[in-house]
Amino acid sequence: MGRSKVTTAPVSESELLRIIRPFLPEPSRDVLAGIGDDCAVIRMPRRGSSLHLLKTDAVIEGVHYASGTPLTQVGWKALCRPLSDIAAMGGIPGKALITVAAPSAWSRGDWKNLYRGIGKAARAFGVDVVGGESVRSPGAAFLSVTLTGEVSRRNLRLRNGARPGDLICVTGKLGGSLASGRHLKFRPRLREGLWLGKQSGVTAMMDLSDGLGSDLPKLAEASACSFRIAEGSLPLHRNCTAKQGMSDGEDYELLVTVKPKSWPVLQRNWISAHPELLLTPVGVVLPRGEKSSLLAPGFDHFDPGTR
Amino acid sequence: MGRSKVTTAPVSESELLRIIRPFLPEPSRDVLAGIGDDCAVIRMPRRGSSLHLLKTDAVIEGVHYASGTPLTQVGWKALCRPLSDIAAMGGIPGKALITVAAPSAWSRGDWKNLYRGIGKAARAFGVDVVGGESVRSPGAAFLSVTLTGEVSRRNLRLRNGARPGDLICVTGKLGGSLASGRHLKFRPRLREGLWLGKQSGVTAMMDLSDGLGSDLPKLAEASACSFRIAEGSLPLHRNCTAKQGMSDGEDYELLVTVKPKSWPVLQRNWISAHPELLLTPVGVVLPRGEKSSLLAPGFDHFDPGTR
Repeated sequence: MGRSKVTTAPVSESELLRIIRPFLPEPSRDVLAGIGDDCAVIRMPRRGSSLHLLKTDAVIEGVHYASGTPLTQVGWKALCRPLSDIAAMGGIPGKALITVAAPSAWSRGDWKNLYRGIGKAARAFGVDVVGGESVRSPGAAFLSVTLTGEVSRRNLRLRNGARPGDLICVTGKLGGSLASGRHLKFRPRLREGLWLGKQSGVTAMMDLSDGLGSDLPKLAEASACSFRIAEGSLPLHRNCTAKQGMSDGEDYELLVTVKPKSWPVLQRNWISAHPELLLTPVGVVLPRGEKSSLLAPGFDHFDPGTR
Repeated sequence: MGRSKVTTAPVSESELLRIIRPFLPEPSRDVLAGIGDDCAVIRMPRRGSSLHLLKTDAVIEGVHYASGTPLTQVGWKALCRPLSDIAAMGGIPGKALITVAAPSAWSRGDWKNLYRGIGKAARAFGVDVVGGESVRSPGAAFLSVTLTGEVSRRNLRLRNGARPGDLICVTGKLGGSLASGRHLKFRPRLREGLWLGKQSGVTAMMDLSDGLGSDLPKLAEASACSFRIAEGSLPLHRNCTAKQGMSDGEDYELLVTVKPKSWPVLQRNWISAHPELLLTPVGVVLPRGEKSSLLAPGFDHFDPGTR
């Protein structure tokens, strides 16, 4: 049996709070009680059509990042991962709870660097850190971030809305995230997810964390559909093959399905709203009975009519 | 760099969901999307005076429970710990997210036992499990539970409401939780916390997780007060000394402060409402300048007038 009192040697809990607070943004006015009470207490939004989003996501040393990775980047990634899920719902992020199981060897400087990264992401994307827990890890570092969010009912996009004939599109470029270090620096597609959630014709949305080859089958299953992907159409990062684009994972781009008749207008509006980021059709949703193919060549994504 | 795709060998993620679902209660009607999408989606309550509670709490093998502890008990404890915090706010629990970092050696039976315990607690206290994550742990098992709750503004009790002259009371008995195994089987004081939050004269509340000797100073600091505890008045579990009652921790009882003039009525009503559970005055809140004493003898807790 271990000790009942959980402390993070050599830094005490109250000292730790003093160390990390300066790195976090000031809490919003709807936070009645944040770090320091039994629970965080938050005023509920009044808007009747709002839905509440909840997400938790873990980042583990040796699994999601290599030992020795700068902790500022680890903190950034830990908060940005669940932010990517909020984005994929068409939502706006709210409050975060941060749980850190830290090796006892962590110094004050390590804690500062971790929270420098968390605080930077919190500021960048308008998140309040309202609580969490710091405990001693008997082994590797383990971070778990819980994030709340909000989405209006009409903007909500789930995985189960894709229908046969819909175009399958992805934001940005795919592949090589781990090898390039992009997985530690990515920006969750919050602005884009919010925008896409507001567009008519967007039928389903999810974020690409495991790779298109692994995530698209999940979306298709949720929507009771099959799919075909055109290898040649994949938007790839430099020096990446289509296979890498399908399976490397950790792209944190958005996967969306779009009604074909909505595509021309959506595409035009996208280019105006997000000139810096690609939105690329890479395939098509098929009826359930048909065989899904991940790398079918010859699909002309600029002409849905050729399907 | 580790693998980007997090799997819990030898059980796949989708298989895992099939294994654990039968142990969890059916989701409530306000859960629009639970386990399986990017985020859980929950309809917000309409009541304007409601506040939202957020809590996260971790349970680590070798820290919060010994290796070899039945996983049913570990699951029960993991959910009941944050429930105790919701209780201490006078709140009602809502939705839970469960993150499990499991050693790869875990069998299907291990997962079932863990979720048997989680499900039992979820049913007992009306919690919806709406999401979470299962990842591979490179070392010990690590559970992190996030819990939402709700509390009406007038029932909310924080740590900072105690005032000089208030009685310090605890529910139940203290001490010996780890040695006796009670820390694996305790029932969070939700019914009692809800009841206490509704009583006038209850000025502050928190749950006893680290032990009275460690938790009371936190409440006193939050309330800018000192305190005096009467050693002889502590309600102790069998074979426990006052010192153990103060410092063993993991009691998961409620610590409350009560205005002295409200005490006689509160005490009478408590006995009617909770005949099976003690509510014992153990000390008094002092003005900030005075020296706090944890084990001062001679305080007659049945007669606040003798202070």
